[in-house]
Amino acid sequence: MTTNMKALRKMQPARGLSMEPTQVPAIGPTDVLVRVKTASICGTDLHIYGWDRWSQGRIKPPVTLGHEFCGVIEKVGDEVAALKAGDFVSAEMHVNCGHCHQCRVGEAHICPNVKIIGIDQDGAFADFVKIPASNIIKLDETIPEHYGAILDPLGNAVHTVLAGAIAGQSVLVTGCGPIGLMSIVVAKACGSSMVFATETNEHRRAMAKKMGVDVAINPATEDAVKRILGETSGTGVDVLLEMSGNPTAIQQGFKALRAGGRASLLGIPTESVPLDLVNDVIFKGATVQGIYGRRMYDTWEQMTALLKAGRLNLEPLFDERISLEKFESAFVKLQSGLAGKILLYPNGLSHN
Amino acid sequence: MTTNMKALRKMQPARGLSMEPTQVPAIGPTDVLVRVKTASICGTDLHIYGWDRWSQGRIKPPVTLGHEFCGVIEKVGDEVAALKAGDFVSAEMHVNCGHCHQCRVGEAHICPNVKIIGIDQDGAFADFVKIPASNIIKLDETIPEHYGAILDPLGNAVHTVLAGAIAGQSVLVTGCGPIGLMSIVVAKACGSSMVFATETNEHRRAMAKKMGVDVAINPATEDAVKRILGETSGTGVDVLLEMSGNPTAIQQGFKALRAGGRASLLGIPTESVPLDLVNDVIFKGATVQGIYGRRMYDTWEQMTALLKAGRLNLEPLFDERISLEKFESAFVKLQSGLAGKILLYPNGLSHN
Amino acid sequence: MTTNMKALRKMQPARGLSMEPTQVPAIGPTDVLVRVKTASICGTDLHIYGWDRWSQGRIKPPVTLGHEFCGVIEKVGDEVAALKAGDFVSAEMHVNCGHCHQCRVGEAHICPNVKIIGIDQDGAFADFVKIPASNIIKLDETIPEHYGAILDPLGNAVHTVLAGAIAGQSVLVTGCGPIGLMSIVVAKACGSSMVFATETNEHRRAMAKKMGVDVAINPATEDAVKRILGETSGTGVDVLLEMSGNPTAIQQGFKALRAGGRASLLGIPTESVPLDLVNDVIFKGATVQGIYGRRMYDTWEQMTALLKAGRLNLEPLFDERISLEKFESAFVKLQSGLAGKILLYPNGLSHN
Amino acid sequence: MTTNMKALRKMQPARGLSMEPTQVPAIGPTDVLVRVKTASICGTDLHIYGWDRWSQGRIKPPVTLGHEFCGVIEKVGDEVAALKAGDFVSAEMHVNCGHCHQCRVGEAHICPNVKIIGIDQDGAFADFVKIPASNIIKLDETIPEHYGAILDPLGNAVHTVLAGAIAGQSVLVTGCGPIGLMSIVVAKACGSSMVFATETNEHRRAMAKKMGVDVAINPATEDAVKRILGETSGTGVDVLLEMSGNPTAIQQGFKALRAGGRASLLGIPTESVPLDLVNDVIFKGATVQGIYGRRMYDTWEQMTALLKAGRLNLEPLFDERISLEKFESAFVKLQSGLAGKILLYPNGLSHN
Repeated sequence: MTTNMKALRKMQPARGLSMEPTQVPAIGPTDVLVRVKTASICGTDLHIYGWDRWSQGRIKPPVTLGHEFCGVIEKVGDEVAALKAGDFVSAEMHVNCGHCHQCRVGEAHICPNVKIIGIDQDGAFADFVKIPASNIIKLDETIPEHYGAILDPLGNAVHTVLAGAIAGQSVLVTGCGPIGLMSIVVAKACGSSMVFATETNEHRRAMAKKMGVDVAINPATEDAVKRILGETSGTGVDVLLEMSGNPTAIQQGFKALRAGGRASLLGIPTESVPLDLVNDVIFKGATVQGIYGRRMYDTWEQMTALLKAGRLNLEPLFDERISLEKFESAFVKLQSGLAGKILLYPNGLSHN
Repeated sequence: MTTNMKALRKMQPARGLSMEPTQVPAIGPTDVLVRVKTASICGTDLHIYGWDRWSQGRIKPPVTLGHEFCGVIEKVGDEVAALKAGDFVSAEMHVNCGHCHQCRVGEAHICPNVKIIGIDQDGAFADFVKIPASNIIKLDETIPEHYGAILDPLGNAVHTVLAGAIAGQSVLVTGCGPIGLMSIVVAKACGSSMVFATETNEHRRAMAKKMGVDVAINPATEDAVKRILGETSGTGVDVLLEMSGNPTAIQQGFKALRAGGRASLLGIPTESVPLDLVNDVIFKGATVQGIYGRRMYDTWEQMTALLKAGRLNLEPLFDERISLEKFESAFVKLQSGLAGKILLYPNGLSHN
Repeated sequence: MTTNMKALRKMQPARGLSMEPTQVPAIGPTDVLVRVKTASICGTDLHIYGWDRWSQGRIKPPVTLGHEFCGVIEKVGDEVAALKAGDFVSAEMHVNCGHCHQCRVGEAHICPNVKIIGIDQDGAFADFVKIPASNIIKLDETIPEHYGAILDPLGNAVHTVLAGAIAGQSVLVTGCGPIGLMSIVVAKACGSSMVFATETNEHRRAMAKKMGVDVAINPATEDAVKRILGETSGTGVDVLLEMSGNPTAIQQGFKALRAGGRASLLGIPTESVPLDLVNDVIFKGATVQGIYGRRMYDTWEQMTALLKAGRLNLEPLFDERISLEKFESAFVKLQSGLAGKILLYPNGLSHN
Repeated sequence: MTTNMKALRKMQPARGLSMEPTQVPAIGPTDVLVRVKTASICGTDLHIYGWDRWSQGRIKPPVTLGHEFCGVIEKVGDEVAALKAGDFVSAEMHVNCGHCHQCRVGEAHICPNVKIIGIDQDGAFADFVKIPASNIIKLDETIPEHYGAILDPLGNAVHTVLAGAIAGQSVLVTGCGPIGLMSIVVAKACGSSMVFATETNEHRRAMAKKMGVDVAINPATEDAVKRILGETSGTGVDVLLEMSGNPTAIQQGFKALRAGGRASLLGIPTESVPLDLVNDVIFKGATVQGIYGRRMYDTWEQMTALLKAGRLNLEPLFDERISLEKFESAFVKLQSGLAGKILLYPNGLSHN
């Protein structure tokens, strides 16, 4: 087997990325080497490309990006018994420590010592990627490859939707980026009743309609809270899925939430958000949940079961499919806010 | 308003029922009088018709049967403010005491002092029925009248399915009577992955397929446990919905349940059931739930939200529609086990 | 029976209260008339006494105050079967509507149509008080009368502590007013491990020690977050019980909460609170709960079971016992922040 | 370091055990070698000693017994970073596979591929025992050594008690062997209200009283169900903790359980148990839980937090302390049913 490969890497503490020749990773006894078939670009990759303040504090170049992908196992470490070369897989890219309190009580997804593959160490925008065997998710062959490439963000959506009751519940999704759009599909598949979405971007509202939302509201031109209260007999929605990180959207979301409702927050605000705790949380008896990553590995089990059963139609979400070398155009398009999920093929385009 | 009406009543402690002239019920200050539009026959009504041992111990003739129905409010008691004549309604027919421990901790559906309208006092197989205002369920006008007539058993199904996690879960329904069939639809609508059903009656297995089941097994001719384990990689199903009351089905259900799974029992065995507690419950770390009635009124809120959102297609389940006077043919047909839900019209057939 | 009585009332939209002659309330068919034995003063009563902005918007004089009390049933309405004259009782003073979505799904304590006896209608600072029978809590004779008088705030504490897991959990109580102090006792009785409290008032910190707190911190002179992280191996506490409403205390509480922890908020901030949602809620995967009132009636069942079993020693909390006429001195003392619970006796001092 | 040690082993497929010279286990890169300080005998060890039918099917001699112990780490494998020689530790002896569905959804304690150290491979009745690092529980130095030796069964008790709500709940413990006795202490420490126990052995009932039970009933001489219903106003207990495996006790337990109650089953019946599912589970809306092992590792975190906080007084439970060589007398005494927990010292008696 060759020891050379190419990868999309951040080489310098500055804007931009570049395709670079590098070494195929050496694996340890409990690791797996995966040949990447399809990868996908996350909003986090855009931040690192642009070298924003968060990236400057977190990323240590040189590093290979990429944490959304699927592929085929190339080889396994000596102590790996449950996996074998040829398995079709994806992976949870958050590597937890295993011995902190959170890891010990079943909350590994919020392990304070987490390392992220594709952020803190070399990721999947490459011919091959090294993953601990425990983090590998074996995929049923019936799951399409392009779905396999976006399980990381789909897992965010599934984690958020299923963080509380959803069957028979009315839902508001604030923000229709990819994870917000996926959440609409997941919520409907899991029995939500009426689903509302707020989004100022017209293209994304149109996407939301394609994904099955019942009411798509432009909060820049319509009083979203009034509209939602009006459509729910003044009660408000049972569930808020906050996907924007926008302070105004968060505040509106809380105002549209019913007393006793659930607010699950995934979107990342860039500063402190003033909250009317008395009226929006305390007197309302609301439950607010911080959502991070995907539960390890409950979310993966739920998500792959839903996919295998054909319950999630995400087709409208997929955008262009390009080879990894042409990454530059993908990043530009994504920054415009008009793209869905763009798929990258390090080892050549697939036609499934 | 007239004070006379007709009703389908048990007049004597013996087999059979008869249409009888009787009085329109007088209502108290917190009651509501409902003009019955559509009613439906429950298996319990068949037991009372046949005058089996259970009926002999419970029923005190004369009494009007009928606890599945919808109608329109005719008039309301003096202290009833939230309802008015003309409202389209159904009702929870279990009348709880309000002051026992169960009622006080939100478990009114298992109040030990419950009285059931249509069993312990005059029911809805009549022109009019008297109901406490607290038990009335106001229905959205978009819910079809024939669905309104079967909310009592649909509530059993919703209560059972939603008594634990269902999204992304594999399910086994043991027994495909009406509530088992409804459970298949509810489970799929709420995100279950693969749904299995066992049923010896060929007609009912065919119905199960129409209702969307993935695998319908005849346990009289096939090893159901082996089949289900085979289709679930040897793991077993996540959820058992026991709808038969049959000891063999119950035992098979537990064998097909995965370690850590949930068994929700609604079917009524007629005698003690020997359970292999060690292997099927204890070592498995299983959770077994007794399910009775419908949660008051969480289940009703979930069910009507699902119906209003159009998430439940129950059309294959509906059988004949006949006027109440022709009840005899309906009871005969139902006893054959080949009927779905037969709708009765005390005030004339509706054509919606 | 006499029809005249005396009551402590707000007669004018202005500061102050006065003892007034008034009529014994007439009761309806589903009501109960209670002879008040012991009452207690809530912080809310202080606000109304002082006629602050909230009071000006909510209170419609004339009205009798008082919502913490116990007494003996004097007579019951015609339709009340489960209670009788002579019963020793307290009451939930939040009267819910019964037909809103919240009431229907078991969340009556956050009914948006709630009316509060002693706030919105005549309360218990009087010889007699009228209460709907459904809201009466029958007390075991073994529960001491002075405990019976403070079940309303004790219910707040029990509701907050038991809103999530508590056994084996470390706890931070921010704010040691009466409900904060009670929370310490309830948390310890229910198996919490280490309990921390923050409070700037020295007298209250001393009270916290008497109530069993493990570590009482003065956040004005010590870095509370650093101290708590230090005592918990850097992990933080499992549970935050926020009892102060103080923005700084809230922010510190979130910083001291472990990833995956629970923050239950009962204290009432007077303005919006800027929250670092990213670091304190989202990345932490925290659960934040708004807590209001007491669950109807789960909290009452839990609380009275704990009291009957002798699990809660609240003796250090009780302050003076005075006749209702001497209310003025009690309000002055309470405003100083140095009093515990002062008991008022409308019908003469009791000596149990 | 020496490579020879002595161990208490089953050498032949026959009754009895013997002290044998053997090798100190060699450890792999992710293992830990522990010098055993104190061990304790489980009922399972008695079964293996006696070579009953279960033992004959499960045990493959030669094997060293012992799965309740604490000790000090002697050395750690090359890849073990979070532990070091000298650490005071105990261990979860169930070694899970890590890749089955149960392991992936946080239910490792019911992994169908589990191997138990001391049953399926060499255990802790020896100078040294080999344990995977992931299974090691580091103990706070404040936890006494004799408590450290019984964390395995105490974990069973904590797992059972905390498998549902316990604060303010009335409890029935059926069977007062060591785990039943521990459950009484744990339930009281976690806020249970009244605790009942049934036990036919007079010595064990006396122990139950020492451990704090409120009512100890001899079901051989008193109608236990009638007594419990009488003491709970006819309602029954909120929680059944079944610790006996005795069919009659199980049936009585269900009859004494309130509608809506929780039955947590840990005791192991030796044959099928006929259950009155209709009246005891279904109409009652009861929840029945199979309990096995200890949650990995939530139960350990809860248990060690309770111990560190000094919330569990188990002193009455401890019986003799003897050197491992004198095991024979301990097994004889335990078989009489009159002993508490007997502590064994492979490396010499400790006097803490």
